[in-house]
Amino acid sequence: MSSSWSLHPQLTKDTVNIGDLPLSRVMIIKDSNYPWLLLVPRRDEVSDITDLNEVEQAQLMTEINRVGLALKAITKPEKLNIAALGNVVPQLHIHIIARRTTDAAWPRPVWGVVPPEPFDPTELEAFTQALRKRIWLG
Amino acid sequence: MSSSWSLHPQLTKDTVNIGDLPLSRVMIIKDSNYPWLLLVPRRDEVSDITDLNEVEQAQLMTEINRVGLALKAITKPEKLNIAALGNVVPQLHIHIIARRTTDAAWPRPVWGVVPPEPFDPTELEAFTQALRKRIWLG
Repeated sequence: MSSSWSLHPQLTKDTVNIGDLPLSRVMIIKDSNYPWLLLVPRRDEVSDITDLNEVEQAQLMTEINRVGLALKAITKPEKLNIAALGNVVPQLHIHIIARRTTDAAWPRPVWGVVPPEPFDPTELEAFTQALRKRIWLG
Repeated sequence: MSSSWSLHPQLTKDTVNIGDLPLSRVMIIKDSNYPWLLLVPRRDEVSDITDLNEVEQAQLMTEINRVGLALKAITKPEKLNIAALGNVVPQLHIHIIARRTTDAAWPRPVWGVVPPEPFDPTELEAFTQALRKRIWLG
């Protein structure tokens, strides 16, 4: 693990920390319009998936699957959207978003469509606990 | 390999076929605004990455890396955008897009920003040949 790794300030600002998997930090994006998670591999100087080595890439896929299945089980969406874009924040981060045909952006991608909507604190706490249980306790 | 697999008609319409990797078909999106590739795992009834089994997921990551590195080597972009969305076309397909700070949508995601721009046929042929050489001959 890179000892000097730290989360990009913009990602810190936009998220609630859920916990660490072997490679990635798992977070909720503070936008109640969508159940929207972020995975950030704890590696320095990594901007594209192709910057990870093969072992890290395989682990990232395992973590995407684990977190994606947890998010599906909890939110029962019509579709997952999984994306590594990073045009604005260069630190590699993978969006895992549960999409519903009734959500604010459907069928468009979520980025830039509607302003973020704050979470109700009770709802956010319940979502956090449900994710921790599913992701870490299987 | 699923014997009944076929490419979704919308993806057939929007792409030029480059060739098959062990899991996925590789295609160029017919839009010269961006160097934009698509990977489609040749599996029936698969809509999300989490629908693939673990072996297929690992192979998909290997193919994303291989195609992503080829696209970077050929186009020298500022950033790769890699995404599995599928809100409109449900057949699992992974976008691999080379982004430049001078492109039509930067820094936004590419979807829906500007209409597709036809390729010059000579340019498309050169891009196709360069990709085939890099992806299959290393």
